[in-house]
Amino acid sequence: KKEDLTGRGERTLCTVSGEKRKANFAQDSDLRRDHSHSQGRLYIVGIGPGELGYLSQKAFGVLRSCEVIIGYRAYVKLLGDLVQGKEVIASSMGKELVRAETAIEQALSGRKVALISSGDSGIYGMAGVVLEIVEKRSINLDLEIIPGIPAFCAAASSLGAPIMNDFALISLSDILTPWEIIERRLTYACQGDFVIVLYNPKSKKRTWQISKTQALLLKYRSGQTPVGIVRNAKRGKEKVILTTLDRMLDYSIDMLTTIIVGNSSTSLSDRYMVTPRGYKIRVDAKDRLPEEFAYSLKKC
Amino acid sequence: KKEDLTGRGERTLCTVSGEKRKANFAQDSDLRRDHSHSQGRLYIVGIGPGELGYLSQKAFGVLRSCEVIIGYRAYVKLLGDLVQGKEVIASSMGKELVRAETAIEQALSGRKVALISSGDSGIYGMAGVVLEIVEKRSINLDLEIIPGIPAFCAAASSLGAPIMNDFALISLSDILTPWEIIERRLTYACQGDFVIVLYNPKSKKRTWQISKTQALLLKYRSGQTPVGIVRNAKRGKEKVILTTLDRMLDYSIDMLTTIIVGNSSTSLSDRYMVTPRGYKIRVDAKDRLPEEFAYSLKKC
Repeated sequence: KKEDLTGRGERTLCTVSGEKRKANFAQDSDLRRDHSHSQGRLYIVGIGPGELGYLSQKAFGVLRSCEVIIGYRAYVKLLGDLVQGKEVIASSMGKELVRAETAIEQALSGRKVALISSGDSGIYGMAGVVLEIVEKRSINLDLEIIPGIPAFCAAASSLGAPIMNDFALISLSDILTPWEIIERRLTYACQGDFVIVLYNPKSKKRTWQISKTQALLLKYRSGQTPVGIVRNAKRGKEKVILTTLDRMLDYSIDMLTTIIVGNSSTSLSDRYMVTPRGYKIRVDAKDRLPEEFAYSLKKC
Repeated sequence: KKEDLTGRGERTLCTVSGEKRKANFAQDSDLRRDHSHSQGRLYIVGIGPGELGYLSQKAFGVLRSCEVIIGYRAYVKLLGDLVQGKEVIASSMGKELVRAETAIEQALSGRKVALISSGDSGIYGMAGVVLEIVEKRSINLDLEIIPGIPAFCAAASSLGAPIMNDFALISLSDILTPWEIIERRLTYACQGDFVIVLYNPKSKKRTWQISKTQALLLKYRSGQTPVGIVRNAKRGKEKVILTTLDRMLDYSIDMLTTIIVGNSSTSLSDRYMVTPRGYKIRVDAKDRLPEEFAYSLKKC
Protein backbone atom coordinates (compact mmCIF):
# COMPACT_ATOMS: atom_id res chain seq x y z
CA LYS A 1 0.00 0.00 0.00
CA LYS A 2 1.38 3.36 -1.02
CA GLU A 3 -0.78 5.41 1.33
CA ASP A 4 1.38 5.63 4.43
CA LEU A 5 1.45 9.15 5.67
CA THR A 6 4.79 10.20 6.99
CA GLY A 7 5.27 12.77 9.70
CA ARG A 8 5.01 16.49 9.15
CA GLY A 9 7.92 17.82 7.13
CA GLU A 10 8.62 14.49 5.50
CA ARG A 11 6.91 12.98 2.54
CA THR A 12 6.62 9.72 0.73
CA LEU A 13 7.67 10.00 -2.86
CA CYS A 14 6.43 7.19 -5.08
CA THR A 15 8.19 7.14 -8.40
CA VAL A 16 7.08 5.82 -11.75
CA SER A 17 9.27 2.76 -11.26
CA GLY A 18 7.33 1.90 -8.14
CA GLU A 19 10.29 2.69 -5.93
CA LYS A 20 9.35 4.36 -2.71
CA ARG A 21 11.55 6.38 -0.43
CA LYS A 22 11.53 9.27 1.95
CA ALA A 23 12.34 12.39 0.05
CA ASN A 24 12.94 15.10 2.50
CA PHE A 25 15.32 16.88 0.16
CA ALA A 26 16.76 18.96 2.96
CA GLN A 27 18.27 16.07 4.83
CA ASP A 28 18.50 13.24 2.35
CA SER A 29 22.21 12.58 2.19
CA ASP A 30 22.14 10.31 -0.88
CA LEU A 31 21.00 13.31 -2.89
CA ARG A 32 24.27 15.04 -2.16
CA ARG A 33 26.72 12.48 -3.54
CA ASP A 34 29.47 14.73 -4.80
CA HIS A 35 29.11 17.47 -2.28
CA SER A 36 28.74 15.71 1.03
CA HIS A 37 31.26 18.07 2.59
CA SER A 38 29.19 21.09 1.70
CA GLN A 39 26.42 22.70 3.70
CA GLY A 40 25.21 24.60 0.66
CA ARG A 41 21.58 24.88 -0.22
CA LEU A 42 19.60 26.45 -3.02
CA TYR A 43 16.20 27.99 -2.42
CA ILE A 44 14.17 29.01 -5.45
CA VAL A 45 11.91 31.63 -3.98
CA GLY A 46 8.68 33.08 -5.37
CA ILE A 47 8.58 36.58 -3.91
CA GLY A 48 4.97 37.27 -4.92
CA PRO A 49 3.69 40.22 -6.94
CA GLY A 50 6.02 42.81 -5.50
CA GLU A 51 4.88 44.60 -2.35
CA LEU A 52 6.64 42.88 0.53
CA GLY A 53 3.33 42.38 2.37
CA TYR A 54 2.45 39.71 -0.17
CA LEU A 55 5.64 37.75 0.50
CA SER A 56 4.95 34.62 2.53
CA GLN A 57 6.49 34.32 5.96
CA LYS A 58 8.33 31.25 4.67
CA ALA A 59 9.91 33.22 1.82
CA PHE A 60 10.74 36.06 4.18
CA GLY A 61 12.55 33.72 6.57
CA VAL A 62 14.44 31.98 3.77
CA LEU A 63 15.61 35.27 2.26
CA ARG A 64 16.78 36.45 5.65
CA SER A 65 18.77 33.26 6.23
CA CYS A 66 20.57 33.23 2.86
CA GLU A 67 24.06 34.57 2.21
CA VAL A 68 23.61 35.13 -1.50
CA ILE A 69 20.59 36.53 -3.35
CA ILE A 70 20.47 36.07 -7.11
CA GLY A 71 17.85 37.50 -9.42
CA TYR A 72 16.69 39.74 -12.19
CA ARG A 73 17.70 43.28 -11.24
CA ALA A 74 14.17 44.74 -11.08
CA TYR A 75 12.96 41.92 -8.83
CA VAL A 76 15.93 42.22 -6.48
CA LYS A 77 15.01 45.89 -6.06
CA LEU A 78 11.52 44.89 -4.92
CA LEU A 79 13.12 43.20 -1.92
CA GLY A 80 14.35 46.53 -0.56
CA ASP A 81 16.17 46.25 2.75
CA LEU A 82 15.78 42.47 2.85
CA VAL A 83 19.01 42.13 0.84
CA GLN A 84 21.03 44.28 3.23
CA GLY A 85 24.28 42.67 4.29
CA LYS A 86 24.08 39.94 1.67
CA GLU A 87 25.93 39.29 -1.52
CA VAL A 88 23.58 40.24 -4.33
CA ILE A 89 24.07 39.00 -7.87
CA ALA A 90 21.61 40.79 -10.12
CA SER A 91 21.53 40.61 -13.89
CA SER A 92 19.35 41.68 -16.78
CA MET A 93 16.28 40.09 -18.34
CA GLY A 94 17.03 37.14 -20.61
CA LYS A 95 19.91 35.93 -18.43
CA GLU A 96 17.79 33.23 -16.73
CA LEU A 97 20.08 30.41 -17.80
CA VAL A 98 23.24 32.03 -16.44
CA ARG A 99 21.50 33.09 -13.25
CA ALA A 100 20.43 29.48 -12.72
CA GLU A 101 23.96 28.21 -13.42
CA THR A 102 25.46 30.72 -11.05
CA ALA A 103 22.98 29.88 -8.31
CA ILE A 104 23.67 26.15 -8.63
CA GLU A 105 27.42 26.73 -8.58
CA GLN A 106 27.24 28.99 -5.54
CA ALA A 107 25.14 26.45 -3.66
CA LEU A 108 27.46 23.58 -4.64
CA SER A 109 30.36 25.59 -3.28
CA GLY A 110 28.73 25.42 0.14
CA ARG A 111 26.77 28.65 0.35
CA LYS A 112 23.12 29.24 1.22
CA VAL A 113 21.63 30.78 -1.90
CA ALA A 114 18.24 32.28 -2.77
CA LEU A 115 17.40 32.50 -6.44
CA ILE A 116 14.33 34.70 -6.75
CA SER A 117 11.39 34.87 -9.16
CA SER A 118 8.60 37.38 -9.01
CA GLY A 119 5.16 35.86 -8.46
CA ASP A 120 5.35 32.09 -8.14
CA SER A 121 8.75 30.50 -8.76
CA GLY A 122 7.05 27.61 -10.59
CA ILE A 123 5.05 29.57 -13.21
CA TYR A 124 7.35 30.82 -15.97
CA GLY A 125 9.79 31.23 -13.06
CA MET A 126 13.27 30.06 -12.13
CA ALA A 127 12.30 26.62 -10.75
CA GLY A 128 12.08 25.10 -14.21
CA VAL A 129 15.43 26.15 -15.59
CA VAL A 130 17.24 25.09 -12.41
CA LEU A 131 15.62 21.65 -12.42
CA GLU A 132 16.30 21.23 -16.13
CA ILE A 133 20.02 21.79 -15.50
CA VAL A 134 20.08 19.66 -12.35
CA GLU A 135 18.31 16.80 -14.11
CA LYS A 136 20.31 16.97 -17.33
CA ARG A 137 23.64 16.94 -15.47
CA SER A 138 22.55 14.60 -12.64
CA ILE A 139 23.62 17.19 -10.11
CA ASN A 140 22.86 16.34 -6.51
CA LEU A 141 22.06 19.45 -4.62
CA ASP A 142 19.97 20.39 -1.61
CA LEU A 143 17.24 22.50 -3.09
CA GLU A 144 13.81 23.69 -2.13
CA ILE A 145 11.20 25.48 -4.20
CA ILE A 146 9.19 28.10 -2.32
CA PRO A 147 5.90 28.96 -4.06
CA GLY A 148 4.62 32.53 -4.12
CA ILE A 149 1.44 34.45 -4.99
CA PRO A 150 1.40 34.55 -8.81
CA ALA A 151 1.01 37.91 -10.56
CA PHE A 152 -2.30 36.83 -12.12
CA CYS A 153 -3.82 36.14 -8.69
CA ALA A 154 -2.77 39.62 -7.59
CA ALA A 155 -4.22 41.10 -10.78
CA ALA A 156 -7.46 39.14 -10.41
CA SER A 157 -7.93 40.31 -6.83
CA SER A 158 -7.73 43.92 -8.02
CA LEU A 159 -10.26 43.33 -10.81
CA GLY A 160 -12.86 41.51 -8.72
CA ALA A 161 -13.25 37.77 -9.22
CA PRO A 162 -12.56 37.06 -12.89
CA ILE A 163 -10.98 33.60 -12.45
CA MET A 164 -13.55 31.94 -10.23
CA ASN A 165 -13.92 29.15 -12.70
CA ASP A 166 -11.74 27.10 -15.07
CA PHE A 167 -9.06 29.16 -16.80
CA ALA A 168 -6.04 28.90 -19.06
CA LEU A 169 -2.82 30.84 -18.61
CA ILE A 170 -0.94 31.62 -21.82
CA SER A 171 2.27 33.61 -22.30
CA LEU A 172 2.36 35.67 -25.49
CA SER A 173 6.15 35.68 -25.52
CA ASP A 174 7.37 33.83 -28.60
CA ILE A 175 11.02 34.04 -27.60
CA LEU A 176 11.07 30.47 -26.22
CA THR A 177 7.77 29.14 -27.64
CA PRO A 178 7.00 29.27 -31.38
CA TRP A 179 4.09 31.61 -32.22
CA GLU A 180 2.11 28.79 -33.91
CA ILE A 181 1.93 26.93 -30.61
CA ILE A 182 0.76 30.06 -28.79
CA GLU A 183 -1.89 30.68 -31.44
CA ARG A 184 -3.02 27.07 -31.25
CA ARG A 185 -3.38 27.35 -27.47
CA LEU A 186 -5.33 30.60 -27.73
CA THR A 187 -7.68 28.94 -30.21
CA TYR A 188 -8.38 25.89 -28.07
CA ALA A 189 -8.71 27.98 -24.91
CA CYS A 190 -11.40 30.00 -26.71
CA GLN A 191 -13.21 26.88 -27.87
CA GLY A 192 -13.15 25.46 -24.35
CA ASP A 193 -14.73 28.70 -23.07
CA PHE A 194 -11.90 29.18 -20.60
CA VAL A 195 -11.26 32.49 -18.91
CA ILE A 196 -7.89 33.35 -20.47
CA VAL A 197 -5.03 34.96 -18.59
CA LEU A 198 -2.39 36.53 -20.82
CA TYR A 199 1.19 36.97 -19.59
CA ASN A 200 3.97 38.89 -21.36
CA PRO A 201 1.44 40.57 -23.66
CA LYS A 202 3.82 43.10 -25.15
CA SER A 203 7.38 44.35 -24.82
CA LYS A 204 9.46 46.97 -26.59
CA LYS A 205 10.50 44.39 -29.17
CA ARG A 206 7.35 42.24 -29.28
CA THR A 207 4.57 44.56 -30.38
CA TRP A 208 2.35 42.69 -32.87
CA GLN A 209 1.46 39.66 -30.73
CA ILE A 210 -1.23 41.40 -28.69
CA SER A 211 -3.07 42.73 -31.77
CA LYS A 212 -2.93 39.33 -33.37
CA THR A 213 -4.26 37.81 -30.16
CA GLN A 214 -7.14 40.27 -30.00
CA ALA A 215 -8.08 39.49 -33.61
CA LEU A 216 -7.97 35.76 -32.90
CA LEU A 217 -10.06 36.05 -29.72
CA LEU A 218 -12.65 38.12 -31.62
CA LYS A 219 -13.21 35.15 -33.95
CA TYR A 220 -14.60 33.21 -31.00
CA ARG A 221 -15.78 35.79 -28.48
CA SER A 222 -18.02 38.84 -28.61
CA GLY A 223 -16.42 42.27 -28.71
CA GLN A 224 -18.36 42.94 -25.50
CA THR A 225 -16.47 40.20 -23.64
CA PRO A 226 -15.15 41.69 -20.39
CA VAL A 227 -11.40 42.27 -20.26
CA GLY A 228 -9.39 43.32 -17.22
CA ILE A 229 -5.99 44.95 -17.59
CA VAL A 230 -3.77 45.35 -14.57
CA ARG A 231 -0.36 46.98 -14.57
CA ASN A 232 1.92 46.65 -11.57
CA ALA A 233 -0.55 44.47 -9.67
CA LYS A 234 0.13 44.82 -5.92
CA ARG A 235 3.37 46.55 -6.68
CA GLY A 236 2.61 50.21 -5.91
CA LYS A 237 1.33 52.51 -8.67
CA GLU A 238 -1.09 49.77 -9.57
CA LYS A 239 -3.38 50.56 -12.48
CA VAL A 240 -6.62 48.68 -13.05
CA ILE A 241 -8.71 48.89 -16.19
CA LEU A 242 -12.07 47.25 -16.79
CA THR A 243 -12.88 47.20 -20.48
CA THR A 244 -13.99 44.93 -23.32
CA LEU A 245 -12.31 42.80 -25.96
CA ASP A 246 -13.17 45.43 -28.59
CA ARG A 247 -11.50 48.21 -26.65
CA MET A 248 -8.59 46.49 -24.95
CA LEU A 249 -5.96 47.95 -27.28
CA ASP A 250 -7.05 51.51 -26.37
CA TYR A 251 -4.98 51.15 -23.22
CA SER A 252 -1.25 50.93 -22.87
CA ILE A 253 0.03 47.41 -22.38
CA ASP A 254 3.58 46.37 -21.54
CA MET A 255 5.66 43.69 -19.82
CA LEU A 256 4.33 44.69 -16.40
CA THR A 257 0.75 44.13 -17.52
CA THR A 258 -1.48 41.11 -16.93
CA ILE A 259 -4.61 40.79 -19.06
CA ILE A 260 -7.60 38.65 -18.13
CA VAL A 261 -10.17 37.90 -20.83
CA GLY A 262 -13.55 36.72 -19.57
CA ASN A 263 -15.46 33.70 -20.80
CA SER A 264 -19.08 33.56 -21.99
CA SER A 265 -20.45 34.01 -18.48
CA THR A 266 -18.12 36.74 -17.16
CA SER A 267 -19.84 40.00 -16.30
CA LEU A 268 -18.62 43.55 -15.89
CA SER A 269 -19.87 46.48 -13.87
CA ASP A 270 -18.18 49.79 -13.19
CA ARG A 271 -16.75 48.20 -10.07
CA TYR A 272 -15.87 44.60 -10.78
CA MET A 273 -15.19 41.88 -13.31
CA VAL A 274 -16.79 38.64 -12.11
CA THR A 275 -16.98 35.13 -13.54
CA PRO A 276 -19.80 33.37 -11.70
CA ARG A 277 -19.18 30.00 -10.16
CA GLY A 278 -22.73 28.79 -10.62
CA TYR A 279 -24.45 29.68 -7.35
CA LYS A 280 -28.12 30.61 -7.54
CA ILE A 281 -28.18 34.05 -6.00
CA ARG A 282 -31.52 35.69 -5.24
CA VAL A 283 -31.77 39.44 -5.78
CA ASP A 284 -33.43 40.26 -2.48
CA ALA A 285 -33.58 37.20 -0.26
CA LYS A 286 -31.15 36.68 2.55
CA ASP A 287 -29.56 33.28 2.73
CA ARG A 288 -28.27 34.07 6.16
CA LEU A 289 -26.46 31.42 8.13
CA PRO A 290 -29.09 29.98 10.48
CA GLU A 291 -28.07 30.05 14.12
CA GLU A 292 -27.64 26.26 14.21
CA PHE A 293 -24.89 26.48 11.57
CA ALA A 294 -23.15 29.47 13.08
CA TYR A 295 -21.39 27.46 15.67
CA SER A 296 -18.67 29.44 17.29
CA LEU A 297 -15.36 27.64 17.70
CA LYS A 298 -13.97 30.11 20.17
CA LYS A 299 -15.59 33.24 21.47
CA CYS A 300 -13.52 34.87 24.14
CA LYS B 1 -4.81 59.96 -21.74
CA LYS B 2 -5.74 57.15 -19.42
CA GLU B 3 -2.21 56.46 -18.27
CA ASP B 4 -1.87 58.70 -15.21
CA LEU B 5 -0.28 56.77 -12.44
CA THR B 6 -1.66 57.63 -9.07
CA GLY B 7 0.26 57.35 -5.85
CA ARG B 8 1.00 54.13 -4.07
CA GLY B 9 -2.11 52.65 -2.51
CA GLU B 10 -4.43 54.39 -4.94
CA ARG B 11 -5.31 53.34 -8.41
CA THR B 12 -7.00 54.67 -11.48
CA LEU B 13 -9.95 52.56 -12.48
CA CYS B 14 -11.10 53.06 -16.04
CA THR B 15 -14.49 51.52 -16.64
CA VAL B 16 -16.03 50.24 -19.84
CA SER B 17 -18.12 53.43 -20.11
CA GLY B 18 -14.92 55.46 -20.22
CA GLU B 19 -15.55 56.92 -16.80
CA LYS B 20 -12.43 57.34 -14.72
CA ARG B 21 -12.19 57.70 -11.01
CA LYS B 22 -10.03 56.93 -8.06
CA ALA B 23 -11.06 53.60 -6.70
CA ASN B 24 -9.32 53.14 -3.43
CA PHE B 25 -12.09 50.96 -2.09
CA ALA B 26 -10.95 51.45 1.46
CA GLN B 27 -11.59 55.17 1.56
CA ASP B 28 -13.95 55.90 -1.30
CA SER B 29 -17.00 57.25 0.48
CA ASP B 30 -19.34 57.06 -2.52
CA LEU B 31 -18.99 53.31 -2.41
CA ARG B 32 -20.54 53.31 1.04
CA ARG B 33 -23.80 55.09 0.28
CA ASP B 34 -26.13 53.34 2.63
CA HIS B 35 -23.70 52.59 5.39
CA SER B 36 -21.74 55.80 5.86
CA HIS B 37 -22.20 55.54 9.61
CA SER B 38 -20.52 52.17 9.70
CA GLN B 39 -16.84 51.42 10.00
CA GLY B 40 -17.40 47.88 8.84
CA ARG B 41 -15.16 46.21 6.34
CA LEU B 42 -15.04 42.86 4.63
CA TYR B 43 -11.76 41.20 3.75
CA ILE B 44 -11.86 38.11 1.58
CA VAL B 45 -8.62 36.43 2.50
CA GLY B 46 -6.71 33.73 0.68
CA ILE B 47 -4.88 31.88 3.45
CA GLY B 48 -2.62 29.88 1.12
CA PRO B 49 -2.21 26.10 1.06
CA GLY B 50 -2.41 25.56 4.80
CA GLU B 51 0.81 25.81 6.76
CA LEU B 52 0.87 29.27 8.29
CA GLY B 53 4.34 29.95 6.89
CA TYR B 54 2.78 30.24 3.46
CA LEU B 55 0.33 32.92 4.59
CA SER B 56 1.33 36.35 3.32
CA GLN B 57 2.21 39.01 5.84
CA LYS B 58 -0.69 41.04 4.49
CA ALA B 59 -3.17 38.22 5.18
CA PHE B 60 -1.62 37.67 8.59
CA GLY B 61 -2.08 41.33 9.53
CA VAL B 62 -5.64 41.44 8.23
CA LEU B 63 -6.66 38.32 10.15
CA ARG B 64 -5.13 39.73 13.30
CA SER B 65 -7.05 42.99 12.91
CA CYS B 66 -10.48 41.45 12.28
CA GLU B 67 -13.18 40.91 14.93
CA VAL B 68 -14.99 38.15 13.08
CA ILE B 69 -13.53 35.23 11.11
CA ILE B 70 -15.88 33.29 8.85
CA GLY B 71 -15.00 30.18 6.93
CA TYR B 72 -15.30 26.52 6.13
CA ARG B 73 -14.61 24.63 9.35
CA ALA B 74 -11.52 22.76 8.14
CA TYR B 75 -9.90 25.96 6.86
CA VAL B 76 -10.59 27.87 10.07
CA LYS B 77 -8.75 25.09 11.90
CA LEU B 78 -5.69 25.68 9.73
CA LEU B 79 -5.43 29.16 11.24
CA GLY B 80 -4.69 27.74 14.67
CA ASP B 81 -4.08 30.36 17.34
CA LEU B 82 -4.65 33.21 14.89
CA VAL B 83 -8.40 33.08 15.64
CA GLN B 84 -7.91 33.35 19.39
CA GLY B 85 -10.08 36.02 20.98
CA LYS B 86 -12.21 36.48 17.86
CA GLU B 87 -15.73 35.53 17.00
CA VAL B 88 -15.47 32.55 14.68
CA ILE B 89 -18.31 31.49 12.44
CA ALA B 90 -17.43 28.17 10.87
CA SER B 91 -19.75 26.03 8.78
CA SER B 92 -19.65 22.96 6.62
CA MET B 93 -18.71 22.48 2.97
CA GLY B 94 -21.40 23.55 0.53
CA LYS B 95 -22.50 26.49 2.68
CA GLU B 96 -20.51 29.03 0.60
CA LEU B 97 -23.58 31.11 -0.21
CA VAL B 98 -24.71 31.49 3.37
CA ARG B 99 -21.18 32.14 4.57
CA ALA B 100 -20.92 34.95 2.02
CA GLU B 101 -24.31 36.39 3.07
CA THR B 102 -23.35 36.25 6.70
CA ALA B 103 -20.00 37.92 6.07
CA ILE B 104 -21.63 40.74 4.10
CA GLU B 105 -24.25 41.26 6.78
CA GLN B 106 -21.69 41.31 9.57
CA ALA B 107 -19.57 43.87 7.71
CA LEU B 108 -22.60 46.04 6.92
CA SER B 109 -23.44 46.03 10.61
CA GLY B 110 -20.15 47.79 11.24
CA ARG B 111 -17.77 44.97 12.06
CA LYS B 112 -14.39 44.14 10.63
CA VAL B 113 -14.81 40.73 9.04
CA ALA B 114 -12.45 38.23 7.41
CA LEU B 115 -14.04 35.66 5.15
CA ILE B 116 -11.40 33.04 4.43
CA SER B 117 -10.64 30.75 1.49
CA SER B 118 -7.85 28.23 1.35
CA GLY B 119 -5.31 28.88 -1.41
CA ASP B 120 -6.17 31.99 -3.38
CA SER B 121 -9.49 33.66 -2.56
CA GLY B 122 -10.07 34.34 -6.27
CA ILE B 123 -9.69 30.79 -7.66
CA TYR B 124 -12.82 28.73 -6.89
CA GLY B 125 -12.75 30.78 -3.66
CA MET B 126 -15.07 33.09 -1.75
CA ALA B 127 -14.32 36.30 -3.70
CA GLY B 128 -16.67 35.34 -6.52
CA VAL B 129 -19.77 34.51 -4.53
CA VAL B 130 -19.42 37.68 -2.42
CA LEU B 131 -19.04 39.89 -5.49
CA GLU B 132 -21.95 38.15 -7.21
CA ILE B 133 -24.19 39.03 -4.26
CA VAL B 134 -22.81 42.55 -3.89
CA GLU B 135 -23.28 43.26 -7.59
CA LYS B 136 -26.72 41.68 -7.90
CA ARG B 137 -28.06 43.65 -4.95
CA SER B 138 -26.05 46.86 -5.56
CA ILE B 139 -24.67 46.67 -2.06
CA ASN B 140 -22.09 49.28 -1.20
CA LEU B 141 -19.56 47.84 1.13
CA ASP B 142 -15.93 48.41 1.94
CA LEU B 143 -14.28 45.25 0.77
CA GLU B 144 -10.84 44.05 -0.14
CA ILE B 145 -9.73 40.81 -1.73
CA ILE B 146 -6.42 39.45 -0.45
CA PRO B 147 -4.84 36.95 -2.84
CA GLY B 148 -3.04 33.88 -1.54
CA ILE B 149 -0.74 31.11 -2.78
CA PRO B 150 -3.02 28.72 -4.69
CA ALA B 151 -3.00 25.02 -3.81
CA PHE B 152 -1.75 24.09 -7.29
CA CYS B 153 1.35 26.30 -6.89
CA ALA B 154 2.07 24.58 -3.60
CA ALA B 155 1.56 21.17 -5.24
CA ALA B 156 3.74 22.09 -8.23
CA SER B 157 6.58 23.23 -5.98
CA SER B 158 6.58 19.82 -4.31
CA LEU B 159 6.60 17.97 -7.64
CA GLY B 160 9.38 19.98 -9.29
CA ALA B 161 8.45 22.44 -12.01
CA PRO B 162 5.49 20.93 -13.88
CA ILE B 163 3.74 24.23 -14.76
CA MET B 164 6.62 26.21 -16.20
CA ASN B 165 4.69 26.75 -19.37
CA ASP B 166 1.08 27.44 -20.44
CA PHE B 167 -1.46 25.47 -18.45
CA ALA B 168 -5.19 25.06 -17.88
CA LEU B 169 -6.84 24.64 -14.50
CA ILE B 170 -10.04 22.57 -14.49
CA SER B 171 -12.23 21.56 -11.57
CA LEU B 172 -13.77 18.10 -11.91
CA SER B 173 -16.64 19.00 -9.57
CA ASP B 174 -19.90 18.87 -11.50
CA ILE B 175 -21.96 20.21 -8.62
CA LEU B 176 -22.02 23.76 -10.01
CA THR B 177 -20.76 23.10 -13.56
CA PRO B 178 -22.46 20.57 -15.88
CA TRP B 179 -20.23 17.59 -16.71
CA GLU B 180 -20.50 18.23 -20.47
CA ILE B 181 -18.77 21.59 -20.00
CA ILE B 182 -16.01 20.00 -17.93
CA GLU B 183 -15.51 17.29 -20.56
CA ARG B 184 -15.42 19.89 -23.30
CA ARG B 185 -12.76 21.85 -21.44
CA LEU B 186 -10.67 18.73 -20.84
CA THR B 187 -10.85 17.94 -24.55
CA TYR B 188 -9.75 21.36 -25.71
CA ALA B 189 -7.05 21.59 -23.05
CA CYS B 190 -5.66 18.31 -24.42
CA GLN B 191 -5.78 19.55 -28.00
CA GLY B 192 -4.01 22.77 -27.01
CA ASP B 193 -1.24 20.68 -25.41
CA PHE B 194 -1.69 22.48 -22.11
CA VAL B 195 -0.32 21.14 -18.88
CA ILE B 196 -3.59 20.36 -17.08
CA VAL B 197 -4.16 20.96 -13.39
CA LEU B 198 -7.13 19.07 -11.94
CA TYR B 199 -8.94 20.36 -8.86
CA ASN B 200 -11.63 18.51 -6.88
CA PRO B 201 -10.76 15.23 -8.61
CA LYS B 202 -12.84 12.98 -6.38
CA SER B 203 -14.99 13.10 -3.27
CA LYS B 204 -17.00 10.56 -1.31
CA LYS B 205 -20.00 11.23 -3.54
CA ARG B 206 -18.25 12.03 -6.81
CA THR B 207 -16.29 8.93 -7.69
CA TRP B 208 -16.61 8.32 -11.46
CA GLN B 209 -15.36 11.69 -12.73
CA ILE B 210 -11.67 10.93 -12.31
CA SER B 211 -11.87 7.62 -14.22
CA LYS B 212 -13.81 9.29 -17.00
CA THR B 213 -11.19 12.05 -17.09
CA GLN B 214 -8.34 9.55 -17.32
CA ALA B 215 -10.08 7.76 -20.21
CA LEU B 216 -10.62 11.06 -22.00
CA LEU B 217 -7.03 12.21 -21.50
CA LEU B 218 -5.76 8.88 -22.83
CA LYS B 219 -7.50 9.60 -26.14
CA TYR B 220 -5.11 12.51 -26.66
CA ARG B 221 -2.05 11.76 -24.56
CA SER B 222 0.30 8.82 -24.19
CA GLY B 223 -0.14 6.55 -21.20
CA GLN B 224 3.47 7.48 -20.37
CA THR B 225 2.55 11.16 -19.88
CA PRO B 226 3.93 12.28 -16.51
CA VAL B 227 1.35 12.85 -13.80
CA GLY B 228 1.99 14.37 -10.39
CA ILE B 229 -0.37 13.72 -7.50
CA VAL B 230 -0.07 15.77 -4.34
CA ARG B 231 -2.22 15.37 -1.27
CA ASN B 232 -2.17 17.99 1.49
CA ALA B 233 0.31 20.16 -0.37
CA LYS B 234 2.23 22.30 2.15
CA ARG B 235 -0.24 21.35 4.82
CA GLY B 236 1.68 18.84 6.91
CA LYS B 237 1.48 15.11 6.10
CA GLU B 238 2.09 16.07 2.50
CA LYS B 239 2.19 13.16 0.07
CA VAL B 240 3.82 13.44 -3.34
CA ILE B 241 3.50 10.89 -6.10
CA LEU B 242 5.24 10.95 -9.46
CA THR B 243 3.54 8.58 -11.87
CA THR B 244 2.06 8.33 -15.36
CA LEU B 245 -1.36 8.80 -16.93
CA ASP B 246 -1.70 5.01 -17.25
CA ARG B 247 -1.06 4.45 -13.57
CA MET B 248 -2.60 7.48 -11.92
CA LEU B 249 -5.65 5.62 -10.62
CA ASP B 250 -3.40 3.19 -8.70
CA TYR B 251 -3.07 5.85 -6.01
CA SER B 252 -5.70 7.15 -3.66
CA ILE B 253 -7.24 10.44 -4.73
CA ASP B 254 -9.63 12.61 -2.74
CA MET B 255 -10.78 16.19 -2.21
CA LEU B 256 -7.44 17.16 -0.66
CA THR B 257 -5.58 16.03 -3.78
CA THR B 258 -4.28 18.15 -6.66
CA ILE B 259 -3.34 16.35 -9.87
CA ILE B 260 -1.06 17.80 -12.53
CA VAL B 261 -0.99 16.12 -15.95
CA GLY B 262 2.04 16.96 -18.09
CA ASN B 263 1.95 18.05 -21.71
CA SER B 264 3.88 16.55 -24.64
CA SER B 265 7.19 17.98 -23.42
CA THR B 266 6.93 17.27 -19.68
CA SER B 267 9.54 14.88 -18.36
CA LEU B 268 9.76 12.72 -15.29
CA SER B 269 12.68 11.41 -13.29
CA ASP B 270 12.66 9.70 -9.91
CA ARG B 271 13.14 13.14 -8.38
CA TYR B 272 11.15 15.66 -10.35
CA MET B 273 8.39 16.37 -12.85
CA VAL B 274 9.53 19.18 -15.16
CA THR B 275 7.93 20.94 -18.10
CA PRO B 276 10.74 22.69 -19.96
CA ARG B 277 10.38 26.34 -20.81
CA GLY B 278 12.44 26.14 -23.95
CA TYR B 279 15.98 26.98 -22.82
CA LYS B 280 18.83 25.27 -24.62
CA ILE B 281 20.68 23.56 -21.83
CA ARG B 282 24.04 21.96 -22.51
CA VAL B 283 24.85 18.74 -20.71
CA ASP B 284 28.33 19.70 -19.57
CA ALA B 285 29.05 23.32 -20.36
CA LYS B 286 28.89 26.00 -17.73
CA ASP B 287 26.94 29.09 -18.70
CA ARG B 288 28.28 30.87 -15.69
CA LEU B 289 27.49 34.52 -15.14
CA PRO B 290 30.57 36.43 -16.39
CA GLU B 291 32.03 38.80 -13.86
CA GLU B 292 30.82 41.82 -15.81
CA PHE B 293 27.20 40.75 -15.31
CA ALA B 294 27.57 39.79 -11.69
CA TYR B 295 27.35 43.31 -10.46
CA SER B 296 26.80 43.43 -6.79
CA LEU B 297 24.11 45.84 -5.61
CA LYS B 298 25.16 45.76 -2.00
CA LYS B 299 27.92 43.81 -0.42
CA CYS B 300 28.40 44.73 3.18
